[in-house]
Amino acid sequence: MAHLLSTSCSLKLSTSCRSYPQALNGCPKTCSTFFTLQTSKSSFRRLVFRGEIPKRSFIVQAAAVPVTQEAPTQSSSNSHQTSGEPSKPRRVMVIGGDGYCGWATALHLSNKGYEVAIVDSLIRRLFDHQLGLDSLTPISSIHNRLRCWKSLTGKTIELHIGDICDFEFLSETFKSFEPDAVVHFGEQRSAPYSMIDRSRAVFTQHNNVIGTLNVLFAIKEFVEQCHLVKLGTMGEYGTPNIDIEEGYITITHNGRTDTLPYPKQASSFYHLSKVHDSNNIAFTCKAWGIRATDLNQGVVYGVRTDETEMHEELCNRFDYDGVFGTALNRFCVQAAVGHPLTVYGKGGQTRGYLDIRDTVQCVELAIANPARPGEFRVFNQFTEQFSVNELASLVTKAGEKLGLDVKTISVPNPRVEAKNITTMPSTLSLLSWDSNHTFFQTLFLTHCLTLL
Amino acid sequence: MAHLLSTSCSLKLSTSCRSYPQALNGCPKTCSTFFTLQTSKSSFRRLVFRGEIPKRSFIVQAAAVPVTQEAPTQSSSNSHQTSGEPSKPRRVMVIGGDGYCGWATALHLSNKGYEVAIVDSLIRRLFDHQLGLDSLTPISSIHNRLRCWKSLTGKTIELHIGDICDFEFLSETFKSFEPDAVVHFGEQRSAPYSMIDRSRAVFTQHNNVIGTLNVLFAIKEFVEQCHLVKLGTMGEYGTPNIDIEEGYITITHNGRTDTLPYPKQASSFYHLSKVHDSNNIAFTCKAWGIRATDLNQGVVYGVRTDETEMHEELCNRFDYDGVFGTALNRFCVQAAVGHPLTVYGKGGQTRGYLDIRDTVQCVELAIANPARPGEFRVFNQFTEQFSVNELASLVTKAGEKLGLDVKTISVPNPRVEAKNITTMPSTLSLLSWDSNHTFFQTLFLTHCLTLL
Repeated sequence: MAHLLSTSCSLKLSTSCRSYPQALNGCPKTCSTFFTLQTSKSSFRRLVFRGEIPKRSFIVQAAAVPVTQEAPTQSSSNSHQTSGEPSKPRRVMVIGGDGYCGWATALHLSNKGYEVAIVDSLIRRLFDHQLGLDSLTPISSIHNRLRCWKSLTGKTIELHIGDICDFEFLSETFKSFEPDAVVHFGEQRSAPYSMIDRSRAVFTQHNNVIGTLNVLFAIKEFVEQCHLVKLGTMGEYGTPNIDIEEGYITITHNGRTDTLPYPKQASSFYHLSKVHDSNNIAFTCKAWGIRATDLNQGVVYGVRTDETEMHEELCNRFDYDGVFGTALNRFCVQAAVGHPLTVYGKGGQTRGYLDIRDTVQCVELAIANPARPGEFRVFNQFTEQFSVNELASLVTKAGEKLGLDVKTISVPNPRVEAKNITTMPSTLSLLSWDSNHTFFQTLFLTHCLTLL
Repeated sequence: MAHLLSTSCSLKLSTSCRSYPQALNGCPKTCSTFFTLQTSKSSFRRLVFRGEIPKRSFIVQAAAVPVTQEAPTQSSSNSHQTSGEPSKPRRVMVIGGDGYCGWATALHLSNKGYEVAIVDSLIRRLFDHQLGLDSLTPISSIHNRLRCWKSLTGKTIELHIGDICDFEFLSETFKSFEPDAVVHFGEQRSAPYSMIDRSRAVFTQHNNVIGTLNVLFAIKEFVEQCHLVKLGTMGEYGTPNIDIEEGYITITHNGRTDTLPYPKQASSFYHLSKVHDSNNIAFTCKAWGIRATDLNQGVVYGVRTDETEMHEELCNRFDYDGVFGTALNRFCVQAAVGHPLTVYGKGGQTRGYLDIRDTVQCVELAIANPARPGEFRVFNQFTEQFSVNELASLVTKAGEKLGLDVKTISVPNPRVEAKNITTMPSTLSLLSWDSNHTFFQTLFLTHCLTLL
């Protein structure tokens, strides 16, 4: 599957992008001029639960509630819950907190008053070295990131560097931090990476499945009331020809009815690992009374949150290569450098998308409203849907506004995926941003063009 | 979960059973008098495909066809298929061929003229040492077993001792043996074992999932036309309140229809590992064109096949402990030693059962009729269904005939499972033996009592 690595323009770009750090060095200490988008639209919104659908499904919607009204107060130490009662969680362990979504989430939760500990093996940075890839945005070391955060806000984020597949390490972090909630981003998260070769397929499934098993055992053993918020993906569902529901579907068959796990058809060893995780977690909820929320998010885009834009040292990563970069990220970079947008196949592949600022709010919302003991909640989360062709069209239009002549070419699809299938969720369990194309256009092309 | 180990009478029995080898030493070289049951009912039957249901489902039924009519002829060496055409498979690799089902299958296939190679790490024997368990029947070393088979039949079964999680080892076995079909029994197969503690849960999922991934990659890399016959379990489905179908279910939902993987609700880390396997295999069929058959068998019972009864050195294992022994095996031993039958909970748990002689014929049938390239076939296989209470009742009645006063007691159920739910398959893809209770009664109690 080595062709996966060469289909995008990553190799070409990786040469021409070497001057980014210099460009960033000229950036003021806060990135407000560097990242020119205003984000006030989101800063006074807070996602709230709008009640509960019967059984196991929730509707999550946006409401204009100032965040400050409901921000958790600074926690006291050792405040983790000891009973089944829904007390307010305070201490949150973010596994994979040095990664793309994890970093933004850790800062967001710290900013909101949670006591945060990051647990990370930093292996994502090793992948970059091994594959010759790099973030478009230069990212600081986790140590510098946390020092910067401390100096800007006075808030300390604990750091535990180690591999959650090592249960001795994980046990020590649980015993020392005593989390009320664990947000688990600590997985190999690229489908193309999992398809490169056997060793990476095996690594992905071992790392993700065994790591998650260890987290479940650690919760059971050390903090049984702890709420697990696990990041899944909409990709677990595949592209069925029926509406995608949230984790469960009620089926009437030969005169009897049951509500069962929604059938999944993952299309990479990575996506499969997430399906395995979901099945394992659901079982431990039933068998041990674990509280768990599975957040099946769409493709996450954007690099800026209120926190990451506070200082260049806090900058989040932007992947644009063929392994870790999303189609949207790659298109933006391709447009910016004058490379035709490389659409895989016919471009009809349609997926859900959400802004990383939605991601962090979704996670906070899940933490603030924990699952009950034994409950395995599943939320599908995205704000918009686009086909690959629509993404290309958006980037083309945005390019035109910036004077770029953006071309598109079709290349053979290196992935095994359904063509031209649009799968809509019947319950749009989501965030009704007033998102629009201008937002998209500006966000990404501005980023790319500013950087380049 | 240590109580799982002590609920049965295994500890008590393990002391009193130490004299079995002496008893066996007095047994004639062939076990025909030692195992007194006649098996002629099955010896002239052969399972045949009765056509194909549209899409991805088969009906497998018994028909009274003498096996000799359709027995494969002795294979020539290096006869493995090189095209997509359905040629007759000859070279069969049996992974886990030293285990309970694997051993019987390896002998059966060798007897039918297939060239057989056993691949096994022998770790099942290590589990016995580690947990202080033992087969009721004394089993010979794999080396002695194969020497005995060779001396009795003139047939050589290759032996490759190693761990399929070690891809270098697995690659060498594939390159040297070049199988037309792989029958994969090489998994940790006990639900209670997987629930003993974290390390065994992790071992089970790692061993089973990564081992199967390696097999898939080995097929893709070395013998892409090779047909994978994977042993699953009916337990993957859990106990839904709708009919269980074979691997797939057609769902109409909000006006659209699709045939999707049947939703599964496994209830142990072992059962979950099998679900993960099935999902991984299904993906590789779609992505790489792997040919695969998933045999979801019920609980297998019996120790005798035409081949294992040929000589005491070929004797199969009989597990009766709380970890590897089935409820039926434990009941038989309990009745024989005067211990009350220990029914978990209310005893309403109903499962499908099949004789090991059916198992080996089902596997042969699958091999003789390979899946097409890219096809992921699923067969549910069992011949009878019993609740735990019904099993206890059968054993009690059989005991009465033998002058035993068999009592039953209820003990707390150490497992997480549905109570009193009877789940019937709508397509009984099965073997219509003229099975009856007498057969059951005699088979097991005779075995146990003869041994004791």
